[in-house]
Amino acid sequence: MTLLTETLSNIRPVDAGLMAQAQARLDNKTKPIGSLGRLEEFARRYVAISGSLDPSTAKKAIFTFAADHGVVEEGVSAFPKEVTVQMVFNFLKGGAGINVLANHVGADVLVVDMGIDHDFGDTPGLIGRKVARGTRNMAKGPAMTREEAVTALEAGIELARGCKTDGVAMAGTGEMGIGNTTAASAIIAAFSGKTVADVTHRGTGINDSALAKKITIIEQALAVNRPDPKDPIDVLAKVGGLEIAGIAGLVLGCAANRIPVVVDGFISTAGALIACELCPTVKEYIFAAHESVEIGHRFMLERIGAEPILDLHLRLGEGTGAALAMGLIDAGVKILKEMATFAEAGVAEGEY
Amino acid sequence: MTLLTETLSNIRPVDAGLMAQAQARLDNKTKPIGSLGRLEEFARRYVAISGSLDPSTAKKAIFTFAADHGVVEEGVSAFPKEVTVQMVFNFLKGGAGINVLANHVGADVLVVDMGIDHDFGDTPGLIGRKVARGTRNMAKGPAMTREEAVTALEAGIELARGCKTDGVAMAGTGEMGIGNTTAASAIIAAFSGKTVADVTHRGTGINDSALAKKITIIEQALAVNRPDPKDPIDVLAKVGGLEIAGIAGLVLGCAANRIPVVVDGFISTAGALIACELCPTVKEYIFAAHESVEIGHRFMLERIGAEPILDLHLRLGEGTGAALAMGLIDAGVKILKEMATFAEAGVAEGEY
Repeated sequence: MTLLTETLSNIRPVDAGLMAQAQARLDNKTKPIGSLGRLEEFARRYVAISGSLDPSTAKKAIFTFAADHGVVEEGVSAFPKEVTVQMVFNFLKGGAGINVLANHVGADVLVVDMGIDHDFGDTPGLIGRKVARGTRNMAKGPAMTREEAVTALEAGIELARGCKTDGVAMAGTGEMGIGNTTAASAIIAAFSGKTVADVTHRGTGINDSALAKKITIIEQALAVNRPDPKDPIDVLAKVGGLEIAGIAGLVLGCAANRIPVVVDGFISTAGALIACELCPTVKEYIFAAHESVEIGHRFMLERIGAEPILDLHLRLGEGTGAALAMGLIDAGVKILKEMATFAEAGVAEGEY
Repeated sequence: MTLLTETLSNIRPVDAGLMAQAQARLDNKTKPIGSLGRLEEFARRYVAISGSLDPSTAKKAIFTFAADHGVVEEGVSAFPKEVTVQMVFNFLKGGAGINVLANHVGADVLVVDMGIDHDFGDTPGLIGRKVARGTRNMAKGPAMTREEAVTALEAGIELARGCKTDGVAMAGTGEMGIGNTTAASAIIAAFSGKTVADVTHRGTGINDSALAKKITIIEQALAVNRPDPKDPIDVLAKVGGLEIAGIAGLVLGCAANRIPVVVDGFISTAGALIACELCPTVKEYIFAAHESVEIGHRFMLERIGAEPILDLHLRLGEGTGAALAMGLIDAGVKILKEMATFAEAGVAEGEY
């Protein structure tokens, strides 16, 4: 049995009994029933996922998966490909948005080279899981072989296993890869059957003519490769990306290891979507961090049945939305763990 | 000149030049232009309010104003009046929702007795600003005299002055007062001319027949008192509450002292609305924490021109939403202060 098939076979529904127990505890806290809204949802789901009525949120990690995309040669991005490498060094030096926001919520940032077109040698702090020096140009043929896609998925699964070993209580996904909104749009178009124009937006900020070109390129990639929506690994390999595969693997691995996983924006959700198409039970382990400005995001969220936590018009990626959402999930768990009950506080209960 | 008139005369528009300078700095950070969405808005507004391009967010305080409401004798709440006192002791012991969430974001909770029907004597930690032992029953006559309303407003203004003295960089509002959604609904109905049914909801969780009764009581209060929407202090005195007056005063005082003020949910926004009706420039100093489940909240937010930061279906009050929103505003300011620029990080800029 391969690591992937073993992982898929280990994914079980979350503990509904514990979820009800957590809600009963919340209902005894000094507040009107249900008055902390989604914070209570976060707490009871976190309990049901982790399997503990007294779960830890102390150790949090955001995985920022980075890779290059062959399709960039078609001119689909406002930024040159070299920015992927440059931003990885920025992450490692602590100067990027994800560093600031992860630090703000007490999460570590783990930067993973899934397939950057650069030889990093022995760069301190970088987690090397390079499968290839970027994908191939999907407008001309498959972005990856099926074997490359599975290798990248399994790299993500192994990182989730490492979370379990290291006591990481909550994981978040993030990414960096110039060109990767093109791959994410192609993935949602392949699964949903929606037109490419309906699921494709401006990425890092391209203008109208570049957007029209991006749509044409994605249509061409789908026509050339004909990804099979019944076979998620086929979709991932033909029009996906190596960082997207890493995210999909991390999400699968978190579900198999009962670790709550906070999925960032558009590209991360494309990875989570691959995971959910491989195993729908994975949906129960996912927190959707935020609603991205990218127009295809809403369709993905509907498909995985997740309601985003934040709507702050973010479109940076890296895991920035996941970091902010982690802070709110943490708050919900603290409500469960730290608030006084009516009996403890000597407060009269309401009549309903 | 009274403290109130002096404060109103000291409120100036925020610094538009500094706001533009802050955005220019944000545009140089290693991210696509505008890609951190509302976090960037929070940062530039925070700069424009505080008057510094390098503002502090270190010291944060949430003021939880508490008072009783004579109208509770009409049976408008699911909880007995005694809960106001009991919850104040819960706040002081650190067991309430606001304690947990303020602690989560590094804010202090300051509990203010504006008019609780209880003699607290020398209770440690409680800020005594009692104007009366609760309001009178608005269904039968004015909740307060005009003098009581102004005294309560000025108590809030003085607390904002104290923030300036004590180096509090960001203030938040919160409240506790059984019966106070009745007062808040009456206030928005008085200003907007909307029907009471359009702006009145279930508060702590009343059932259908209690909701119908609550609506009838508010209609009666408006008919008996005929508050003048052109005279915000008249509205506040006749159908408001002492904690709502304290909030209105704090918001005015923050605007006069250039302190960003994060306004919690339905009742807090009623206080902020009184402040904005007294001086529309106050709107520039307000961050609206979240969209409450209370149906009248949206009308208030529209009237003060504020877009809520969170939508987590909260309806607890106390300042809980303000605490969570403070964490996000803090994150935005950190983006401005801590992220690397393109030049610092050696990252190529995009073409737009």
